[in-house]
Amino acid sequence: MTVEVTLQPFTQRWLPALEREMRAALTSSEPALAYHYGMMHYHMGWVGADFQPSDLPAGKRVRPLLCLLACAEVGGDPAQALPAAAALEILHNFSLVHDDIEDGDETRRHRPTVWKLWGAPQAINVGDAMFALAFAALQRAADQGVTPERTLAALRTFTAMTVALTEGQHLDMRFEQRDDVTVAEYIRMIQGKTAALIGASVAIGALIGGATAAQDEALQRFGQAIGLSFQVQDDILGIWGDPAVTGKAAGNDILRKKKSLPLLHGLNDPTVGPRLHELLAGEVTAAQVSRALTLLDEAGSRAYAVAEMTRWHGIGIAALEEALGAQARQSPIFTVTEQLFGRSA
Amino acid sequence: MTVEVTLQPFTQRWLPALEREMRAALTSSEPALAYHYGMMHYHMGWVGADFQPSDLPAGKRVRPLLCLLACAEVGGDPAQALPAAAALEILHNFSLVHDDIEDGDETRRHRPTVWKLWGAPQAINVGDAMFALAFAALQRAADQGVTPERTLAALRTFTAMTVALTEGQHLDMRFEQRDDVTVAEYIRMIQGKTAALIGASVAIGALIGGATAAQDEALQRFGQAIGLSFQVQDDILGIWGDPAVTGKAAGNDILRKKKSLPLLHGLNDPTVGPRLHELLAGEVTAAQVSRALTLLDEAGSRAYAVAEMTRWHGIGIAALEEALGAQARQSPIFTVTEQLFGRSA
Repeated sequence: MTVEVTLQPFTQRWLPALEREMRAALTSSEPALAYHYGMMHYHMGWVGADFQPSDLPAGKRVRPLLCLLACAEVGGDPAQALPAAAALEILHNFSLVHDDIEDGDETRRHRPTVWKLWGAPQAINVGDAMFALAFAALQRAADQGVTPERTLAALRTFTAMTVALTEGQHLDMRFEQRDDVTVAEYIRMIQGKTAALIGASVAIGALIGGATAAQDEALQRFGQAIGLSFQVQDDILGIWGDPAVTGKAAGNDILRKKKSLPLLHGLNDPTVGPRLHELLAGEVTAAQVSRALTLLDEAGSRAYAVAEMTRWHGIGIAALEEALGAQARQSPIFTVTEQLFGRSA
Repeated sequence: MTVEVTLQPFTQRWLPALEREMRAALTSSEPALAYHYGMMHYHMGWVGADFQPSDLPAGKRVRPLLCLLACAEVGGDPAQALPAAAALEILHNFSLVHDDIEDGDETRRHRPTVWKLWGAPQAINVGDAMFALAFAALQRAADQGVTPERTLAALRTFTAMTVALTEGQHLDMRFEQRDDVTVAEYIRMIQGKTAALIGASVAIGALIGGATAAQDEALQRFGQAIGLSFQVQDDILGIWGDPAVTGKAAGNDILRKKKSLPLLHGLNDPTVGPRLHELLAGEVTAAQVSRALTLLDEAGSRAYAVAEMTRWHGIGIAALEEALGAQARQSPIFTVTEQLFGRSA
């Protein structure tokens, strides 16, 4: 509670500005393109399927918030980081539009996905447009007085992240067709699919704020490690989480045979692994989920995952301390991180 | 023949360097990603579906060639434009990968398309990766001694083009579902889908080569107008073209009911239009194609399209003369343009 109060003046000031920046980036004055941009606005939660304004709560905007905070943390003006923050959130949303097609997911945030409403061809193109517009959004930094050198450096970090994202997505899809994915391969995959974007969010904010190269590198490592830790937490919740919190039944990821960290740990266990493989070979029933949970207990998979989550969290905080020194644990960026982990209300 | 000989020293020197630049941009040293990059190499024509080297003839590389020539034309060193040239060709190929999915096309250059071989989910992601890597390729310009200001300006032109491309693609897909597309709407669509990339190719090469702002703007207009003219020529060939040249039967675009410029002209003709609409309402037979060709004759649609092609070509050449002065018609960039139109052997 205390923590949220600390952040509130910052989010109250900057999150509405962020929404305005994103809307400005995802806009065309050309009537013939109203439908094209309308689909993007739908995905962003700004309008309904009829393109009429909707008042859905905005997402948590974690990535742009980390970007703005990192900028402020190193002494910069968050206004200069707004274009980058908008770019990061738009890029994140591009990846969701395409992920939904690739995974065949029909709903997101309790609404039909873009491809479900308008078909895969338009949805592929809507994602492409948001990808392109994310770059355009970032380039607006130059208009906010960010030097060409810094804008270019931010663009390079941003671009490298988009490459990493597609590499991670490739591995994720490949792993679905394999039975022998190792824990190390999984970590490599989420480094691309999840951690790279969080790392880039922090690094780009810091870069625009005027961080030293060493600070910037440490902050990127912080973001990447925290991103990994956050993903592992998500994996744990997907199997043992409180349904009241996650909206999913316990064991849900087992039912879907999602190869998340705990399950991969169990599958790679020399004694439990073969039995778990056999158990999950065909269609998975509720009884088999329960049996799988027992096997994961036997392999110590939950404890392993918690230890990994804690380890990556520790690596992240150490990098934050490297970047910010003694003030690290008093910084709002630390606060946001702890909120992500639900360690503070 | 003379003309090709004139260009040959340039293409012999720069096209192999371009291929090397593109290969360097589409590469990862990580064994786990061999499959991911292998799919891209397949699309580029460098390997077969088994990822073994293939010796397919490379594409014409028209866009990167225009970029390199524009750079040289304004007194720049084409080596500095190589990263941009590679980026433009990679971006073009990204759009083909996604277009093939969106259109359901199963073959391209006489080979199965990426989605046909590896499924739409991987193909969407392969396109996304090439999109990202095109930006990465362009950013290598800074390593070739291009200043941050110019690199950033090139990135802005490049990004605006990618936005235009997705807008054009949106309109193209929307038009397929409409019966009342006007000629003006069609021109707007191909400005995004075809002309923007050719305009950007010339503009970015000139920018890196040190063109003045006025020169650069005129060269971009040249590329856009030539791109429009080229598309209209393609439309004419799609209906009346020599099958020996185009590999397609005459009337092919009528059979597919492709709303290209000549057909739209006929459909919008006050007397012929209603009959043409009726004729093409259901499945189209060979007899109906023949009847449609007669109606297009009656409406003067071919003459109209030829006049439009010529008009845009003239606008393009005028812009080239604006940029290059008296030397325009002696420049290699003019030569390449005329070759595109098959006006010289």
